[in-house]
Amino acid sequence: MTHRSGSVTLLEVAPRDGFQSIAAPLPTGEKIAIAERLLDAGVTRMELGSFVSPKAIPQMADMAEIAAHFKGREGCRLSVLVPNAKGASLALAGGYRDLVFVVSVSEAHNRNNVRQSVAQSLDQLRAIVAEMGDGGERLRVDLATSFDCPFTGAVPLDAVRRVFAEALSIAPKAEFALCDTTGRADPLTVARRFETVMADGPADAVWAFHGHDTFGMGVANALFAHSAGVSIIEGAAGGLGGCPFAPGATGNTATEDLHFAFEEGGIATGIDRERLLAAADRIAALPGGKTASHLRNVPRKRALAG
Amino acid sequence: MTHRSGSVTLLEVAPRDGFQSIAAPLPTGEKIAIAERLLDAGVTRMELGSFVSPKAIPQMADMAEIAAHFKGREGCRLSVLVPNAKGASLALAGGYRDLVFVVSVSEAHNRNNVRQSVAQSLDQLRAIVAEMGDGGERLRVDLATSFDCPFTGAVPLDAVRRVFAEALSIAPKAEFALCDTTGRADPLTVARRFETVMADGPADAVWAFHGHDTFGMGVANALFAHSAGVSIIEGAAGGLGGCPFAPGATGNTATEDLHFAFEEGGIATGIDRERLLAAADRIAALPGGKTASHLRNVPRKRALAG
Repeated sequence: MTHRSGSVTLLEVAPRDGFQSIAAPLPTGEKIAIAERLLDAGVTRMELGSFVSPKAIPQMADMAEIAAHFKGREGCRLSVLVPNAKGASLALAGGYRDLVFVVSVSEAHNRNNVRQSVAQSLDQLRAIVAEMGDGGERLRVDLATSFDCPFTGAVPLDAVRRVFAEALSIAPKAEFALCDTTGRADPLTVARRFETVMADGPADAVWAFHGHDTFGMGVANALFAHSAGVSIIEGAAGGLGGCPFAPGATGNTATEDLHFAFEEGGIATGIDRERLLAAADRIAALPGGKTASHLRNVPRKRALAG
Repeated sequence: MTHRSGSVTLLEVAPRDGFQSIAAPLPTGEKIAIAERLLDAGVTRMELGSFVSPKAIPQMADMAEIAAHFKGREGCRLSVLVPNAKGASLALAGGYRDLVFVVSVSEAHNRNNVRQSVAQSLDQLRAIVAEMGDGGERLRVDLATSFDCPFTGAVPLDAVRRVFAEALSIAPKAEFALCDTTGRADPLTVARRFETVMADGPADAVWAFHGHDTFGMGVANALFAHSAGVSIIEGAAGGLGGCPFAPGATGNTATEDLHFAFEEGGIATGIDRERLLAAADRIAALPGGKTASHLRNVPRKRALAG
């Protein structure tokens, strides 16, 4: 497997998972400017934010405005996260077709994250797919806490398989992600778990991995997920982020660190590193943002070429 | 490869690569106490320091005293680094049999590191093996800058193969290490380079990987080296270190982060994580030490169990 080559899609989540980690809401114009810079760098998949109650996450109160700005943008696939059917209806009414729905494998985390049981969340998914009317073809289902839960610890593989099976029966054409919400997954377990769960689904399913670098495994987890056949790896430029409902979690794995790991190894991302780092610099300059990047902390010349 | 299991040897270099990174020499008693704690944690391979000119590295001026303390210690293999034949003679005269000799693949780095050309260093290796008289059976040869040089950038694979071939002809029974001195190696290149260079040597050769986490690849590089067949992975508890002759390099990959990556994936190290973290805590408390550890920065309970 060490001789594999080819490509990987780095899905940018700084505008969603990252921006929600900053307590004071950012100016809408700044959010849009940063997302534009990421697109300029060659990013083709990005989560723009969440259609969620402003009471729950005030940082996303301007979601409709941002969504309107990017509506119909070509050459990329921009999605919005929805925690429930109400959010999905808002997004769809606004003309948004690419949705991300999140359900946790862990009951405790799902209740903390979206204030519903896992069964209730799956009912929401059912309603969303019914409204979308295409078997979930433009939907991604994020299976949060697929490895570890901040409240209950290790998450059994069987629980992941069970929630995946139910979600798949509801949204057979969706894209799926196993999410290491806390950053405590280890690389070999990531690879094995993907191999097992992917074998439960259709052979042509598209899979994603969402990771955090809290335990220092972020880059390795991404590479091992890719080696298991995962084609979409999520990252946040600058390593911005964390999960407000996962105590202790630090930021998403920095997109620029992932870029280095894949591209230096001959796996193309389609993203320009210098422009990506410039976008990460702008993110790191945001007041109140916590970032964690290795590549931003080496001399820029060394980050760009050996 | 993701289903591999088995074991790995984590070779501890904090007392050598780590302590030399602290400008003010540490008290000898503190150095010994830390090394004892690492042994108590289950470490079986460790570099105790360097037999080097105190003018070049004053932090190692008490090497003979430390070596005397640990001389004859059973149940572990403790080595000392020697940059030349003079250091080797001193070590051997002091009763030390396990030596580590370092030569850089990059001419520029070798001249900065040991003030000799690569050819001159290989002459030193010849003299050392002649004095040891066993084909280098108790010798490890570290090939520094096997991927990247802080002065000249990317190091060609052919140069690594050439220096390895010469070193192997001089020390056919030695253990060899490819060293990512700057931390700029990427995981796929590490795996490929090991596969190629290992195929140049005898099938029963023992190989090691020495890495730094400067570019955030430390853990991933170690796992990919292991997947290529490398059985010895170097780390420094606490992530202490850097190379005084490799500008910009941060510490060695933290042994506790490596422990997490391997053990959580089912690959045994023989080391107790709680005791290792306690030793890392003591190292992190050393005045003037720069440490970089992920595992020390999460709640201890979470570092120990999911």
